Amino acid sequence: MATIVLYKTARSVSRRCTGAHFRSLACSREPLCTVLPGAGPWFSRGAGVRLISYGTAGKSAASRVGRRALVLGGAAVVSAAVAGLVANASHFQRAEMATSIVPVPEVRELEGDILERCRGFMSPPVTDMNVLQSRKDEMRTRMEMLIMETQAEFCKALEEVDGSKFKVDRWERKEGGGGISCVMQDGKVFEKAGVNVSVVFGNLTEEAARQMRSRGKVLKGKDGKLPFVAMGVSSVIHPKNPHIPTVHFNYRYFEVEEADGSKQWWFGGGTDLTPVYINKEDALLFHKTLKDACDKHHLQHYTNFKKWCDRYFYVRHRGETRGIGGIFFDDLDSPSQEEVFSFVKSCARTVVPCYLPIVYKHLNDPFTQEEKDWQQVRRGRYVEFNLVYDRGVKFGLATPGSRIESILMSLPLTARWEYMHEPAKGTREAEMLEVLRNPKEWV
Amino acid sequence: MATIVLYKTARSVSRRCTGAHFRSLACSREPLCTVLPGAGPWFSRGAGVRLISYGTAGKSAASRVGRRALVLGGAAVVSAAVAGLVANASHFQRAEMATSIVPVPEVRELEGDILERCRGFMSPPVTDMNVLQSRKDEMRTRMEMLIMETQAEFCKALEEVDGSKFKVDRWERKEGGGGISCVMQDGKVFEKAGVNVSVVFGNLTEEAARQMRSRGKVLKGKDGKLPFVAMGVSSVIHPKNPHIPTVHFNYRYFEVEEADGSKQWWFGGGTDLTPVYINKEDALLFHKTLKDACDKHHLQHYTNFKKWCDRYFYVRHRGETRGIGGIFFDDLDSPSQEEVFSFVKSCARTVVPCYLPIVYKHLNDPFTQEEKDWQQVRRGRYVEFNLVYDRGVKFGLATPGSRIESILMSLPLTARWEYMHEPAKGTREAEMLEVLRNPKEWV
Repeated sequence: MATIVLYKTARSVSRRCTGAHFRSLACSREPLCTVLPGAGPWFSRGAGVRLISYGTAGKSAASRVGRRALVLGGAAVVSAAVAGLVANASHFQRAEMATSIVPVPEVRELEGDILERCRGFMSPPVTDMNVLQSRKDEMRTRMEMLIMETQAEFCKALEEVDGSKFKVDRWERKEGGGGISCVMQDGKVFEKAGVNVSVVFGNLTEEAARQMRSRGKVLKGKDGKLPFVAMGVSSVIHPKNPHIPTVHFNYRYFEVEEADGSKQWWFGGGTDLTPVYINKEDALLFHKTLKDACDKHHLQHYTNFKKWCDRYFYVRHRGETRGIGGIFFDDLDSPSQEEVFSFVKSCARTVVPCYLPIVYKHLNDPFTQEEKDWQQVRRGRYVEFNLVYDRGVKFGLATPGSRIESILMSLPLTARWEYMHEPAKGTREAEMLEVLRNPKEWV
Repeated sequence: MATIVLYKTARSVSRRCTGAHFRSLACSREPLCTVLPGAGPWFSRGAGVRLISYGTAGKSAASRVGRRALVLGGAAVVSAAVAGLVANASHFQRAEMATSIVPVPEVRELEGDILERCRGFMSPPVTDMNVLQSRKDEMRTRMEMLIMETQAEFCKALEEVDGSKFKVDRWERKEGGGGISCVMQDGKVFEKAGVNVSVVFGNLTEEAARQMRSRGKVLKGKDGKLPFVAMGVSSVIHPKNPHIPTVHFNYRYFEVEEADGSKQWWFGGGTDLTPVYINKEDALLFHKTLKDACDKHHLQHYTNFKKWCDRYFYVRHRGETRGIGGIFFDDLDSPSQEEVFSFVKSCARTVVPCYLPIVYKHLNDPFTQEEKDWQQVRRGRYVEFNLVYDRGVKFGLATPGSRIESILMSLPLTARWEYMHEPAKGTREAEMLEVLRNPKEWV
């Protein structure tokens, strides 16, 4: 496959999203590819897109959340590093994506000062900040900073729309690890919004390590035990207005140390949308934003991960997908840790521009009781997927020591099951079902 | 163990329950052991209860439902025998109950004329009535008649309380079999009430047959295939008023034919109550009614099956039982088919006297929005159990050709998930949780 190499100016990456920006974009009803973090003037040099500048968005985000830190006013330093379970952050699925990602020269972003960046978080990070500072170049630190930043950025964008504040819970797992759960319940706009970070470490048995990795690769432990780190950010947002879709995203990282001291690592993640009614503009904006993020790293990413998403979020007993998809990937470990991290970072930074414009656009849409009921029925299907199929939830519920409330915060505040509910032909409800039964290409 | 042998007069079994009877009993607030179908004057002859007269309740029930048949006005004869899947009727659990049931002389009940009895059903039975008539002494016929009768009796009792009618759906399964689903939705008293019958036949693989049977016994098929019949009645009732508990019951029968022509058979079943608030009187009535039904067959039955119920309906990730239990058993195949059927029949005939007095008693209880919300939170837990743990639901959802709507009619019309919901100490909600966390002996 031929490759396009794209260069961009360093200046362009400082464009970040604000509520005001989204509001104006929502009014303009234009696809939002221009607000992608890191998007800027591109210079095409072939066929097959590849980003080689990884930008400085981290720094600009840090200074921005830094300004917001005053609002939090929390403790500046956590007294001890804690460890825990990746609640709802582990979607294990057979990997089919060891694709031909072209290695690129390593251009590391300027991630800025750890302590400075932490000030913008919803809570001090799970790992002690001094520990993070002392190993700031390690991937586990860089990923923990990314998931904390993603949580903060998303939560603050939602707080700005809703007017309510997130409840922030820190929790620890006695086996090692912990997390930060941010939940907003019965807000003005959001019926239930959860954004969870977890950072876990400890020892896995060889069997558990095999199951954890979607390709089921056998890993050799010292005396059968494998030290591991697992971390992720995970979110589900259920709005009140049936014209605002539910969104879910999850980005995660795993490290397992084998007996010979070598480290296995991999990333997983995805973002997907579950509307109650089809709105083609929204679907296009959502998918186009994801595609643009993917295209910067590999032209096949969006196509492959979109398919994977439709396959993963499938409610088999209903013959329906959960929503209109997005992207989903797991067990991604090539071509290099730097390149995959960069891809994951691009994805994580699309969660706000993927979703917030849609929220603003429909903020004041009027709705009927019938539309609300249909939303509740779709919420029931959401519950069915999460409790029956979601591998992260199943793994979490089956694991002793899991924080159940963080795993199940993905469930809606309210849901409904009507016997033999089938929308009449030609209705907007039937149109929605049709798409769920036959996933579409939106871009 | 010593044994009590009990005799009863034939006359006593004609006492059946009516709404008016329950209303008066509900007012009296007395435990209802006296209205057990078949209960009457007993003559104790030892220690350890054993019923040897199987009564003539079938006949009296037949004539009663016969009178009601006019209400239905449905087709008198089904044109073809159909077959299907035991939707939500298969709770597979490791059997621990091959207990010392003492063989008793076979005293068959007078089950009356098939066609006459069918007139009282909610719909003609799944199997063609002429086929049933031609093999009326076979257990599969007698059990199909029992589950149809149980469905009709329970539905009519609920219709009498609610004032609404059940929607009756007949469905077929192309692999062989079918069922009759009766659902009442958004009634005056009941938010959602489902009473489902299914009768299935076809061929099982040896592996499927092994999984179907809770003790996992290996069965030998002809060319690896085993003809089977599976049937059951299953019901979940979710009332609107939070002071009326949810009830569930399920009684089922399996037959598998081995290569040498021999038939393996077993029964399973149970009835359990899920209140939103603890009411000791209700709990006593419910458990006492079940215990009395069990005691007629074996003094250990109630103790053993009550324990099994608490173990089965356990929401592990919450550390709570689903409700306050009742009885649950599976894979029951001794001492004789006749004796086990008789026991199952006693249980099936307690579903009305177990539950209806409680419904009438609380019919007009006032309730607050807070009480309604707590009910909705408990409904969420009900959904969690049904989707995550219930083996019948899991089996049904995973089986191609299942009738999903019949399996999932057990889900409530509405449910709620609140993040970190924990009732304050000393409240009635906390009292309920305490019982769910530490199952009680009620009788």
